[in-house]
Amino acid sequence: MKALALVDRFGLDALAWIERPRPEPGPGEVAVRLVAAALNYRDIDVIEGRRKLALPLIPVSDGCGTVTATGDGVSGLAVGDRVMPIFVQGWLAGPQPRDEVLPTLGGPLDGVLVEHGVWPEAGLVRAPPSLSDVEAATLPCAAVSAWNALFVHASVGPGDTVLVQGTGGVALFALAFAKLAGARAIVISSSDAKLARARELGADATINYATEPGWGARAHALAGGGVDCVVEIGGAATLAQSIAAVRSGGTISGVGFVSGREARLDVAELNRKGVRLVGVRVGSRASFEAMCRAIERHRVRPAIDAVFGFADAVEALRRFRDGGHFGKICVSFG
Amino acid sequence: MKALALVDRFGLDALAWIERPRPEPGPGEVAVRLVAAALNYRDIDVIEGRRKLALPLIPVSDGCGTVTATGDGVSGLAVGDRVMPIFVQGWLAGPQPRDEVLPTLGGPLDGVLVEHGVWPEAGLVRAPPSLSDVEAATLPCAAVSAWNALFVHASVGPGDTVLVQGTGGVALFALAFAKLAGARAIVISSSDAKLARARELGADATINYATEPGWGARAHALAGGGVDCVVEIGGAATLAQSIAAVRSGGTISGVGFVSGREARLDVAELNRKGVRLVGVRVGSRASFEAMCRAIERHRVRPAIDAVFGFADAVEALRRFRDGGHFGKICVSFG
Amino acid sequence: MKALALVDRFGLDALAWIERPRPEPGPGEVAVRLVAAALNYRDIDVIEGRRKLALPLIPVSDGCGTVTATGDGVSGLAVGDRVMPIFVQGWLAGPQPRDEVLPTLGGPLDGVLVEHGVWPEAGLVRAPPSLSDVEAATLPCAAVSAWNALFVHASVGPGDTVLVQGTGGVALFALAFAKLAGARAIVISSSDAKLARARELGADATINYATEPGWGARAHALAGGGVDCVVEIGGAATLAQSIAAVRSGGTISGVGFVSGREARLDVAELNRKGVRLVGVRVGSRASFEAMCRAIERHRVRPAIDAVFGFADAVEALRRFRDGGHFGKICVSFG
Amino acid sequence: MKALALVDRFGLDALAWIERPRPEPGPGEVAVRLVAAALNYRDIDVIEGRRKLALPLIPVSDGCGTVTATGDGVSGLAVGDRVMPIFVQGWLAGPQPRDEVLPTLGGPLDGVLVEHGVWPEAGLVRAPPSLSDVEAATLPCAAVSAWNALFVHASVGPGDTVLVQGTGGVALFALAFAKLAGARAIVISSSDAKLARARELGADATINYATEPGWGARAHALAGGGVDCVVEIGGAATLAQSIAAVRSGGTISGVGFVSGREARLDVAELNRKGVRLVGVRVGSRASFEAMCRAIERHRVRPAIDAVFGFADAVEALRRFRDGGHFGKICVSFG
Repeated sequence: MKALALVDRFGLDALAWIERPRPEPGPGEVAVRLVAAALNYRDIDVIEGRRKLALPLIPVSDGCGTVTATGDGVSGLAVGDRVMPIFVQGWLAGPQPRDEVLPTLGGPLDGVLVEHGVWPEAGLVRAPPSLSDVEAATLPCAAVSAWNALFVHASVGPGDTVLVQGTGGVALFALAFAKLAGARAIVISSSDAKLARARELGADATINYATEPGWGARAHALAGGGVDCVVEIGGAATLAQSIAAVRSGGTISGVGFVSGREARLDVAELNRKGVRLVGVRVGSRASFEAMCRAIERHRVRPAIDAVFGFADAVEALRRFRDGGHFGKICVSFG
Repeated sequence: MKALALVDRFGLDALAWIERPRPEPGPGEVAVRLVAAALNYRDIDVIEGRRKLALPLIPVSDGCGTVTATGDGVSGLAVGDRVMPIFVQGWLAGPQPRDEVLPTLGGPLDGVLVEHGVWPEAGLVRAPPSLSDVEAATLPCAAVSAWNALFVHASVGPGDTVLVQGTGGVALFALAFAKLAGARAIVISSSDAKLARARELGADATINYATEPGWGARAHALAGGGVDCVVEIGGAATLAQSIAAVRSGGTISGVGFVSGREARLDVAELNRKGVRLVGVRVGSRASFEAMCRAIERHRVRPAIDAVFGFADAVEALRRFRDGGHFGKICVSFG
Repeated sequence: MKALALVDRFGLDALAWIERPRPEPGPGEVAVRLVAAALNYRDIDVIEGRRKLALPLIPVSDGCGTVTATGDGVSGLAVGDRVMPIFVQGWLAGPQPRDEVLPTLGGPLDGVLVEHGVWPEAGLVRAPPSLSDVEAATLPCAAVSAWNALFVHASVGPGDTVLVQGTGGVALFALAFAKLAGARAIVISSSDAKLARARELGADATINYATEPGWGARAHALAGGGVDCVVEIGGAATLAQSIAAVRSGGTISGVGFVSGREARLDVAELNRKGVRLVGVRVGSRASFEAMCRAIERHRVRPAIDAVFGFADAVEALRRFRDGGHFGKICVSFG
Repeated sequence: MKALALVDRFGLDALAWIERPRPEPGPGEVAVRLVAAALNYRDIDVIEGRRKLALPLIPVSDGCGTVTATGDGVSGLAVGDRVMPIFVQGWLAGPQPRDEVLPTLGGPLDGVLVEHGVWPEAGLVRAPPSLSDVEAATLPCAAVSAWNALFVHASVGPGDTVLVQGTGGVALFALAFAKLAGARAIVISSSDAKLARARELGADATINYATEPGWGARAHALAGGGVDCVVEIGGAATLAQSIAAVRSGGTISGVGFVSGREARLDVAELNRKGVRLVGVRVGSRASFEAMCRAIERHRVRPAIDAVFGFADAVEALRRFRDGGHFGKICVSFG
């Protein structure tokens, strides 16, 4: 079978098509024919060598596929079922495992830019029936991170206000989930056009951070005394404003750092406001399943920016790296 | 009555003895003759003008006194009872109030370097009978902050490991409370002599951060995979090592910033480890009372470094500012 | 001023109009002219003497009024503001106070069937502007209990399923709040007509418990493996079916016991399923305010069955006691 | 290999020695030679047919053994390691799984009265080195239930008070864990001799419930306003007193029902006091491991009443069923 892999060096240019023997499921395992994948910032980080990972490696963590065979003792999945592998294999429920290194897809474990994969039954989640393959492929990291940012690390509910940074995959899921839960959503972006689209998707207020660099105070005022939860995706360039935006006793859920990982933090202000700044490492299988129930119930549709063919996966990654998208960039293996 | 106050400018040198009319308790209020006070870093910050506060102001938040009169409707306290005013007046229970500015003692509200004060009944907590006046005066900020750092913002219990920074007031309370709860305690300091005293007080392991600047990795190893809770008191100079020390999914309770408030934060590492960094704004009256039950039950004795007379309160503040103490510096109004 | 009171004996027939001096606000207190009240089962229990309370007593806990004067030091309310007194005076935030007896309105404290009342500023909550006086009067017990049943004692969110018992005040608030939070709601009643109205208000599924006494299993199946949260209002006659309905690890929030207080509990089944059965004593001021934000944001309108004049308050109580209502029975002092 | 099994009917008399082929570990699995077992009330219930379980069945859930072989991909355990299988196979962390039927040892899954067993690696926990084989065998149900009763379903800590019912396995673990966490422990029993032994093990107060049937009020007073957490083991005969004993807002952790499963519950009182009554279905692997860290750290020694040989396992079960023991009754396969 074919796979797109980093064989002996890192970099987008280093990705190469390789042949691998098709894996067979052992006891308790499930074989999956991958049919779609979706891209995340982490995939670019991995491919460009900014994570310390061993080679060779098949990158990209998020995908969707169809069960083609099941090993002995598999009882909950059958041939033909549509499934998504979970990002942190083995994290079934509860808080993040204590282990320093976690077995995550797309590095250190092989990812989904491959025709066939085998995972333990508990390492797979059933795709919501109302989603297409490509839509389901967007869920494992981006959607689960957004879900956990709002409902596991914070407890966003009716009447609360959420601030969402940007209009990438995690951001638009966070917007959708905030609305489902009865919360208000404030979206920031440097593009008025994207902010207009965010309002169409339900954003209650928007701020252009390019023209309003002190957006934290503005968001604080819009929320009537500070936002309850910030979905922090920017990192270095946004953290200080996030602290300005959040209410006393509120939560900043740290999901990304697209503007850089080295932030300045005013510890005195964090302490004074009693802010909780929580790192979100995606989430557990149980969170994933709870999210799928909500997605199916409310017919949430992931925002898809573009879909590339399997043969054009490198092009998709390049497009993703160059930015400018609104929602997810995906690969269909069709 | 006499009070030590900042009248029209900030600075230790600006503190002046003033005369104020003795206040009378209204309905629901309680009059207290103050008999002891204890100093915190925040008091120095306030006095030196690093908080934006209006003058005149009677500084210092933590004290203990004796009830001298009660207003109409006061039912839970009587003349002669020993009490401590709570730091955040009005925060009776639950999470930190949503208000941006809180009514805290020692600024913006007047503090305890005064002979008599009046507070609402719910703004006072009964002193543990086993403590002296001076010992009870050490509790409102330092001890409650340590309590909340371990038990409200984290859930430290038997078998857990806590890392405590330094040997000041909060630190030694955190050490004592960690041991009460069945946890291990690792203490760091730049003084081997202080570390020896910390071991006498129950520290299970100690690290001299001056000779071992990469103490985070060492603490991580000592805890067998990362500490469960860091009581973060250093701020700028310690935060990065605290993130190295804490386990995946662990908590850093931000209480102080004695080395500076502007820290560098590696957001990627925070997110990867799923760390919770929580600002601790002392705590509620209910936390204070829970802590007093534990203190009384286990006969915890606060570590007192030195006790000054009321007339020498400025000298006490100077001594505190210059550092070098082990435990609390106090003032007895005797 | 006039009040309707139990003077020297209990019973609906014992209620008598009395004259009381109009109270004046002391420091920190607020005087309120009551303009509306709303009835709860507890009021009937109190009036009929099933709670051990001292007389004389002005009954009925839930009301709305207008501020007519403020005492010294009141800063957050002004003359003309519309307010509701909170049920448990002094419970401002956090979990239920530890005290065995709580100062609740309508017994042991006087209630709202009176022209004027005085409460501490912190004992009042601002009415949502979008609600009428009568609508605001329905909130203090019924709505806050429903809010806490879903969001404080459980954590109902998108994709969850809630089971609501009956179509009284708490039940219809629970239905409304469940829908706000993105949850499904199953309503049970013995009246097909009321179930039809519940579906109009958003109920996703309904069960007539008179024709389907084993409704627990049915609800379990409708929820696809058990409901996440039961709002338990029936008591003796419903608890066993509630345990059958709830999912493993789910929550039963005990709010009422309209069918009797002595229930049979299968402890083995409770333990096996890992069910949490939690008594809900209304809730804190902070919960009340969070709920008001959600109500105002989403323009939730309480379901009102009937409104009586102040002079007909006894008739209103009789109507309430006799049952058959859908939503709240209210009194307007107009 | 030999096993003691229920072949075609239930009852202590029906237990028969059978021969089974020794199982081999598949990928991810671990083979264990069992060396000790410990008995719980649930085992008697299972054996006497009070749970709906299919036959044949090897009963008894709690055991300890030595790893004899590991399947492909097992990385955390090696031959010679001492391990205990977890009670709910597959429950690795977080709250109780949503499934209605859980795969628990000793029914429906085979238990440990057998010479060899095979479990997935994640279904085993390493025994604390300081415990003997027999001592380690007592942990999987009894100790984990006690741990969860105090620290997962409640949050017992320094200064709290715990009430423990009886002097069986769960009770004595709960007593030990309460003391580790800095809490006071009140133990009730019908035997003054056992209460004396409980005091030797650290009980701060004891009540003979035979001579003081209204022990709830007494415990409430001893705790100075109600106990924070009741470890409810009695069931039908104790629940009402447990509600009398617990403080407002406190927790009753339901672990057992040795006096019967059909209890009367005063719903009004539960609601008024805001009590949380939580069913404890043992606990997760993560809880088990946290507990083992505490046990090893503090050198907790399980209380062992008697140890029988493997050949005398039926006698051990009979002894257990007849009651009168203090601590655990165990079987050593030696």
